[in-house]
Amino acid sequence: MSKEIPYKIYLEESELPKQWYNVRADMKNKPAPLLNPATHEPMTVEELSQVFCRELAEQELNDKDPYIDIPQEILDFYKMYRPAPLVRAYCLEKALDTPAKIYYKFEGNNTSGSHKLNSAIAQAYYAKKQGLKGVTTETGAGQWGTALSMACAYLELDCKVFMVKVSYEQKPFRREVMRTYGADVTPSPSTTTKVGREILEKFPGTTGSLGCAISEAVEVAVNTEGYRYVLGSVLSQVLLHQSVIGLETMAACDKYGIKPDMIIGCAGGGSNLGGLISPFMGRKLRGEADYEFIAVEPASCPSLTRGKYAYDFCDTGMVCPLQKMYTLGSGFIPSANHAGGLRYHGMSGIVSQLYDDGLMTARSVEQTSVFRAAEQFARVEGILPAPESSHAIRVAIDEAMKCKETGEEKTILFGLTGTGYFDMVAYQKFNDGQMSDYIPTDEEIARSLANLPKL
Amino acid sequence: MSKEIPYKIYLEESELPKQWYNVRADMKNKPAPLLNPATHEPMTVEELSQVFCRELAEQELNDKDPYIDIPQEILDFYKMYRPAPLVRAYCLEKALDTPAKIYYKFEGNNTSGSHKLNSAIAQAYYAKKQGLKGVTTETGAGQWGTALSMACAYLELDCKVFMVKVSYEQKPFRREVMRTYGADVTPSPSTTTKVGREILEKFPGTTGSLGCAISEAVEVAVNTEGYRYVLGSVLSQVLLHQSVIGLETMAACDKYGIKPDMIIGCAGGGSNLGGLISPFMGRKLRGEADYEFIAVEPASCPSLTRGKYAYDFCDTGMVCPLQKMYTLGSGFIPSANHAGGLRYHGMSGIVSQLYDDGLMTARSVEQTSVFRAAEQFARVEGILPAPESSHAIRVAIDEAMKCKETGEEKTILFGLTGTGYFDMVAYQKFNDGQMSDYIPTDEEIARSLANLPKL
Repeated sequence: MSKEIPYKIYLEESELPKQWYNVRADMKNKPAPLLNPATHEPMTVEELSQVFCRELAEQELNDKDPYIDIPQEILDFYKMYRPAPLVRAYCLEKALDTPAKIYYKFEGNNTSGSHKLNSAIAQAYYAKKQGLKGVTTETGAGQWGTALSMACAYLELDCKVFMVKVSYEQKPFRREVMRTYGADVTPSPSTTTKVGREILEKFPGTTGSLGCAISEAVEVAVNTEGYRYVLGSVLSQVLLHQSVIGLETMAACDKYGIKPDMIIGCAGGGSNLGGLISPFMGRKLRGEADYEFIAVEPASCPSLTRGKYAYDFCDTGMVCPLQKMYTLGSGFIPSANHAGGLRYHGMSGIVSQLYDDGLMTARSVEQTSVFRAAEQFARVEGILPAPESSHAIRVAIDEAMKCKETGEEKTILFGLTGTGYFDMVAYQKFNDGQMSDYIPTDEEIARSLANLPKL
Repeated sequence: MSKEIPYKIYLEESELPKQWYNVRADMKNKPAPLLNPATHEPMTVEELSQVFCRELAEQELNDKDPYIDIPQEILDFYKMYRPAPLVRAYCLEKALDTPAKIYYKFEGNNTSGSHKLNSAIAQAYYAKKQGLKGVTTETGAGQWGTALSMACAYLELDCKVFMVKVSYEQKPFRREVMRTYGADVTPSPSTTTKVGREILEKFPGTTGSLGCAISEAVEVAVNTEGYRYVLGSVLSQVLLHQSVIGLETMAACDKYGIKPDMIIGCAGGGSNLGGLISPFMGRKLRGEADYEFIAVEPASCPSLTRGKYAYDFCDTGMVCPLQKMYTLGSGFIPSANHAGGLRYHGMSGIVSQLYDDGLMTARSVEQTSVFRAAEQFARVEGILPAPESSHAIRVAIDEAMKCKETGEEKTILFGLTGTGYFDMVAYQKFNDGQMSDYIPTDEEIARSLANLPKL
């Protein structure tokens, strides 16, 4: 039945997905609606369109249509770096001496270095189509900002990025990549916005946070003629665009008769995980197949495993819609010693609902063990993984080692979301034995959760 | 006749080359022999085997066999990151509004970030096969050292890298990638070698040079039991391994009916250029087809366009064999303001002979115009190119613009050897308008050439 599996499966250009898959259409329990932060009423397309492009606002609220056409212009852009390969990790299997079969979908083969580009080009495209002049966004580790800069350069759209100040200073090369793509990069908090000035007044010398950068980007978007705000994760529209990862993966699996037993993804806001698992989850929801899905999050920012499923603010300035999600509270800030990304306090509403419904599991892992997995993977598979992606590698290796004990020949699939070229400060810490772990106390989390909005 | 051309042509794994092509077999005028620096007699395999692995020494001197089998272990490693895509630059063509068809072979899709891995794994493999414990090498910009570290990690071979001190200090992230792959990285000149101590005594505070790092690496290799020296460019064995680039490119072109009119490559030591053009040059030498070949070098280190075709030292310490090549003199050091690689004073013996025979042309370009091309390319093609590779982009764009003037529909093929993730300091200089050009004076070059060895 099954063909011989090459090291890397590349679909043909003609086999690329032409529609995104909207998993909400197949969910019995839909994600809870976004609420207006002032009225606590469900957000309408009209209201959302003040912040997002019209077509994206519609996608955000669409929980009916299972498939949405990918516009030709986006398909053409996808062809520049997609299909992404589905890789059989023969070398890792051999190094682990495991009977498990390990596959990973590699999304790092583009200059932005991660899967973020899949949604960046979509969001930039709809902005351009609507006749806008530019978009604003925030970036932490820098992958999203880089991806959006690339997409905007391609479409000749202005791009204003608020970069968390500590990253702006510690990752000057990320900043330069964005500038090379023509983006305007401002360290956040800045004095260019009202919310930024307020935060600076209240916390002089603060090095910023993602929640604060979001607030600044939204403020500029809604107050500047011809601008809208775009976001790289958490939102349902983002998971929709990222479904291209899962659709390609599923097509490659079907073509070669590969049946994954478990599908593993790292989870920060949930965009990669949601995109990878969506089409497979669809099959599970429709009763066509079963898979074990595992979300992997850092022990230092454990929204699924230790957070609460509740409505919360998405940003520090509390200007964004309220979202029901697994959250650690919008004031939660992961320990500074946490090196990778995945630092967001909340989780995608779709992923949260699937998790709450018991359709997937989650586990948290500590960063030194994540970097050990990253190093092992790099040495045998020849790809230097991003710290974020390495959370999935950690669990994939753990599961493969369990198979070694039990003798089971499980098929393990994980998402390798990106490369770690801009994370060498973290690798250096690890190489020098200077990296440590941090797990928030129950009190810390309870303190943060005490500030959830009262509905 | 010709099929529709996708954005990216990926050969099937089964279509990967199983033999390297040795262009020397088809050259009427063979490259001049390497000479023993002491006796000025041609080097024998026995002599070379003191420095290089036996099988590599044989490959170095083999100018008879047109094809050499690629060992299965190397083929397996190649499958981890090859085939490399041949990309149709549709977006660049559109941006330039040119009737030319532009293609590039992209070799940056692996963690080492460049084509260097093709020869690194081969050299490491033969070392392992010979039962050696480890290898030594030098690295400047860091691409070669990274590639070799990856190959050695995969084969569990020790790897000692002498990194030019200025790069060691200015490119800490390159260094960390090598360390992550388990390499031992020493800034050169160091006090760990005799030649290093001599240079430090003579020039205290020197920031090192490639020629000096080569001398240190060779000294350690010949004085350490179970070690040999490996080199990432210039040598004929390296061009042999790099022929995999050209063979894949030719197979993809033939499969899709693509007939390049001109083939363009950047040239430092000549490994990428030689590898890319070799199989096409073979056709030209055998009278089966004709192509225009263009080597592009930096105006600040113009060995082909302004150097002399003569025997010269390959290293500062003058311990390596003498090679007949286009050279600026082994004492030539490109201006510090030159940002990219391609800083070697000499050129591959094969490329030198082909150029001297009029079978290819060369031109030099200034770095600000190279970075302008890099930025333009990045914005439309979505790949952030290495400064080295961008030399080829510059000339490809120039040629495409000529086609726009004349209306000719030429097919232009160039080698995109790698990515620029670790070159953001240079990009930042360019983004800030702080980059300038430097062209050595005739006197400077004459002064350096006055020190060629007397045979």
